[in-house]
Amino acid sequence: MELVDILKPIEADMQKVELQLRDAARAEFGPLALVIESIIESGGKRMRPAATLLAGRMFPQRDDNLLKLAVSVELLHMATLIHDDLLDKAATRRGSATINSKWDSKSTVLAGDYVWAKAAKIAAEVGNTKVLGIFADTIMVIVEGEIKQDYTGSSSNPNRDEYYTRIYAKTASLFEGALRSAAVLGNASDAHINALGMYGRKLGTAFQIIDDVLDFVGTPAEVGKPVGSDLRQGIVTLPAIIYYEKHPKHPVIASIAVKNGHSTLELEEVIEDIRTSPEMTAARQEAQELVREAQRALEALPKTKYRQTLHQLADYVVERKK
Amino acid sequence: MELVDILKPIEADMQKVELQLRDAARAEFGPLALVIESIIESGGKRMRPAATLLAGRMFPQRDDNLLKLAVSVELLHMATLIHDDLLDKAATRRGSATINSKWDSKSTVLAGDYVWAKAAKIAAEVGNTKVLGIFADTIMVIVEGEIKQDYTGSSSNPNRDEYYTRIYAKTASLFEGALRSAAVLGNASDAHINALGMYGRKLGTAFQIIDDVLDFVGTPAEVGKPVGSDLRQGIVTLPAIIYYEKHPKHPVIASIAVKNGHSTLELEEVIEDIRTSPEMTAARQEAQELVREAQRALEALPKTKYRQTLHQLADYVVERKK
Repeated sequence: MELVDILKPIEADMQKVELQLRDAARAEFGPLALVIESIIESGGKRMRPAATLLAGRMFPQRDDNLLKLAVSVELLHMATLIHDDLLDKAATRRGSATINSKWDSKSTVLAGDYVWAKAAKIAAEVGNTKVLGIFADTIMVIVEGEIKQDYTGSSSNPNRDEYYTRIYAKTASLFEGALRSAAVLGNASDAHINALGMYGRKLGTAFQIIDDVLDFVGTPAEVGKPVGSDLRQGIVTLPAIIYYEKHPKHPVIASIAVKNGHSTLELEEVIEDIRTSPEMTAARQEAQELVREAQRALEALPKTKYRQTLHQLADYVVERKK
Repeated sequence: MELVDILKPIEADMQKVELQLRDAARAEFGPLALVIESIIESGGKRMRPAATLLAGRMFPQRDDNLLKLAVSVELLHMATLIHDDLLDKAATRRGSATINSKWDSKSTVLAGDYVWAKAAKIAAEVGNTKVLGIFADTIMVIVEGEIKQDYTGSSSNPNRDEYYTRIYAKTASLFEGALRSAAVLGNASDAHINALGMYGRKLGTAFQIIDDVLDFVGTPAEVGKPVGSDLRQGIVTLPAIIYYEKHPKHPVIASIAVKNGHSTLELEEVIEDIRTSPEMTAARQEAQELVREAQRALEALPKTKYRQTLHQLADYVVERKK
């Protein structure tokens, strides 16, 4: 099923989110507005606002606030991408040149700060202190995660615990916070808030694993990056970790995390080894299991079309090709 | 009068702010915590939390929330300093090496993001949506100001309007927002909120002018930077603008804003010309006038020892030597 078909029940909401994102980009100052518009228009799947809206729609609540929450979540995501691209010195994102490959680092810092400030402003407009607390906590988790990654680097052995900790901070925490917030805004019970938080966390984790799988198997045209770009940067993700578990004596994979200098040829070879190994399927299966757990968490919630859509959204996360 | 004597009425509060700032620095992750502690311990005058506390104490309100507001204001200030130092490629701040002269730009971005996130977290704990709205608006103003400065640069002629717009965004907006917030938290009337906002805005503007004056006349030991460091970076502040108004044909001053290459010798000469000119007094007088306006704004408020202290604090701002 295509994402656009899955999201039919919130089609009108998603269009409003898109318009509000464009409004948010309308910075008073021209050149910056162009840049932020280009980020917003480069698209992305809008998974975070979609999941936020679906969770929120399960409870009767004010449309305007739920929409603002969804917009603010996507802006926060974009802000972290901008600083992240700078930190990773990434050259492309979603197939387009990243801000920092077009701008200097100064402008990238400022653009990230601006989108971040805008996210905070819109979140503040929602006017719910509990939601703002979740928003602020999520920012802390994301930033602490980036710092840990930067300072500890990876340990000498590619390591599953580190990986899951890292992707929680990087991706799952925002899904978790967004879905909890949507439920809080709808005055949901603690049981429902927790169920949606759990769903968000599992979904976000699965989403990141599949992103990391697609980094190996997607074509550059599909994923907008060179094949194996994570490993080329010394970032060891689940497919490589499982591959290492099966081939602990592999000369390249074992030392990639400690960033011993590897030739491009060595990297190409190990990327090809991983890409064509059964470990790709094993990584997908881990994501699949998380999706099942996410779907089980939904069982605590009222049976509505929104719950059904969240269920389908979870299936989409592992089935997607880009 | 020394600052410490002026602030006697809130001495206990200020000590608590200091402890809470140190608590805030206690990041889970070791190396980062050390760096943030070093920023916090490098001191600074804590003008922003002091003014926030004094404004808040005029109204009966919860101690814990007012203290959190004051801490959050200082953290927000610190976060902007960290990114600002990176953007300006400043080598020293308050006499100590800046983060980015010790760290790479990646770490500086992360440290700024972390302190910023912490400020948002503590502001969210205050649990007042109006205060959070002011907080978010202030961040927007600060970031937009930095972006404008970066992108427009200065116009060809050093220009008073641009200067005042810039220092509002850079400094006065946070004083204004902090004082308004303190009054909002104390359920003050709109008249009182506006009076304190006006005081904060005028005080912050005067504070920045004096900072810019001290950049010319302070010794490196006092201000922790080389004499004329702004002009050396092509940043034209009020003393230089007034000097230019009086000497429009001065060969160096007229072109500094457009960053024509100047030799160190030329820069040293123009700095000395400005430093020893009567225009330094004229700049101080503009700050003095703003302080009087700030003090007049206080007249709308109940006559308490806190109002009296805010009055003295305004005098201190222009009298200080560092």
